[in-house]
Amino acid sequence: MTFFLADSNKPIKTERKNYGGSQLVYVKNPHLDLMDEDILYHLDLGTKTHNLPAMFGDIKFVCMGGSPNRMKAFAQFMHKELGLKGDAKDMTDICAGTDRYCMYKVGPVLSISHGMGVPSISIMLHELIKLLHHAKCCDVTIIRIGTSGGLGIEPGCVVITDKAVDSFFKPQFEQVILDKVVVRSTELDQELAEELLECSREIEDFPTLVGHTMCTYDFYEGQGRLDGALCSFSNEKKLEYLKRAYDAGVRNIEMESTVFAAMCRLCGLKAAVVCVTLLDRLEGDQITASHEVLVEYQRRPQQLISMFIKKRLGLWNQKELLDNAVV
Amino acid sequence: MTFFLADSNKPIKTERKNYGGSQLVYVKNPHLDLMDEDILYHLDLGTKTHNLPAMFGDIKFVCMGGSPNRMKAFAQFMHKELGLKGDAKDMTDICAGTDRYCMYKVGPVLSISHGMGVPSISIMLHELIKLLHHAKCCDVTIIRIGTSGGLGIEPGCVVITDKAVDSFFKPQFEQVILDKVVVRSTELDQELAEELLECSREIEDFPTLVGHTMCTYDFYEGQGRLDGALCSFSNEKKLEYLKRAYDAGVRNIEMESTVFAAMCRLCGLKAAVVCVTLLDRLEGDQITASHEVLVEYQRRPQQLISMFIKKRLGLWNQKELLDNAVV
Repeated sequence: MTFFLADSNKPIKTERKNYGGSQLVYVKNPHLDLMDEDILYHLDLGTKTHNLPAMFGDIKFVCMGGSPNRMKAFAQFMHKELGLKGDAKDMTDICAGTDRYCMYKVGPVLSISHGMGVPSISIMLHELIKLLHHAKCCDVTIIRIGTSGGLGIEPGCVVITDKAVDSFFKPQFEQVILDKVVVRSTELDQELAEELLECSREIEDFPTLVGHTMCTYDFYEGQGRLDGALCSFSNEKKLEYLKRAYDAGVRNIEMESTVFAAMCRLCGLKAAVVCVTLLDRLEGDQITASHEVLVEYQRRPQQLISMFIKKRLGLWNQKELLDNAVV
Repeated sequence: MTFFLADSNKPIKTERKNYGGSQLVYVKNPHLDLMDEDILYHLDLGTKTHNLPAMFGDIKFVCMGGSPNRMKAFAQFMHKELGLKGDAKDMTDICAGTDRYCMYKVGPVLSISHGMGVPSISIMLHELIKLLHHAKCCDVTIIRIGTSGGLGIEPGCVVITDKAVDSFFKPQFEQVILDKVVVRSTELDQELAEELLECSREIEDFPTLVGHTMCTYDFYEGQGRLDGALCSFSNEKKLEYLKRAYDAGVRNIEMESTVFAAMCRLCGLKAAVVCVTLLDRLEGDQITASHEVLVEYQRRPQQLISMFIKKRLGLWNQKELLDNAVV
């Protein structure tokens, strides 16, 4: 196993181990092999306390989002969509021993929450990737389904990310390691993005586009909002910044995509970010849509990912396509 | 109202408005006055939907921590400690309409969760500070009670932070505003830290110290752990970094203190960070203590803050002190 650091001028080579055509999820940490036990502390799982290959070995899709309730709802939705037996309401949280994250398994689909912001998702990703590695999972597709602020597009629009960019519109993630700053690429799998876009085109009245997603460390000052506890800039300065972001190709803003893209890329996971927009930030800052409208918006990425998974599993047919169009 | 940006060479002046000797919590955002309504989206509260002064006007202490369950337990503990009527088990989550944060009110004490990492706590702080402002709260003390990794100290030790420092051991927080980086001071209230240390000395067998707290954006690579999905450094490099941190005065490492200190300072809130250490990072990376031991450790900051609040409210007496010593 080799591992390496990257800098901004050097594109990161994504290594892939192939065994009989299968793509294993792998960690980039030579120290792990030397450990007698690995406690995935924030997931309340471990290599000695749980049989991870038996519990998770068949996982092919990992879907994640910020809100625990939303990821439970997604698991219940997938249970129904995949036609699995049993009552989806009885689904148990695999991480019930901790309140940091929640996790549900539905056949080959893992649904997991990641909280808000880069540090929160990064803790989960470290432990999830180790989990997939310990469980010997292969050919895993990983998708973040989230909410976001839109830029110059209608609220309710779904954005499939081609590149996650930082606050300076650069497609990179800065990781502090010890006290050095290492720059990592945040490019996502273009084929997967294209496949998801094609899925969206089969659903009627389903506004979807591919664009850059800006990832910030702060919801208020960091996203140019005028309605935080602190604000030191004018409406004009805010709009000038957001328009520059738009001109750079940014179509939505959220808070997790850069580290998600960077870590998945380094670990050989085909990854996508699919977020619905709750408002157009060129029009305002506050999220004023009704609860019902917001709930409907938040179902859209779930609907798209469900279709994508069913197609991949060969469970999608023309009848459903027609049924889906009139939902 | 004035507001200003700060840079690393210019210490931040903390303005305070005094009305009859009372210290109001205030926002630094001239745009808020122009808003007809303020929706505190992630708390599921708002100025038109809730009577914030009636609900929160008497708040004097805000206590926060990452875990929702822990902050519920703290609220129930304070309910008992303050001798309030009613069953603490019936306590309702004020933010029940959202699963982003949880919030409980116990007399003059607000107990609220903040999730993990700087972005997660910063969203909550923006909305909490606006809440305290809208509710016209005054003389509020705000305390983060959390968990952390220790440096060169016994697990279970409680660290009261004098300065929150970044990964480079600097007492500052870098806030990206639009696409400019603004540097803010992370000094905490020294009198409050001293008062808390004095409280701790009255409790028997309660190892407590004052020291710098390092705040990182990542639990694994960012804190020099060898057990993440990614690791590119040796044990020697890790120890060299952690020892440099120790020599710079760092006694514990967590993921929220810099932005907490910076925002509270800017908004005129007297703030403290009190974290228990779950392990000594010079000895290892994994949290291997038993569930029972970890639960007992996590109660320690709660015990200290309960004593502090009761003293401030004139509810502490010698008998309790003796009772407490034998708990």
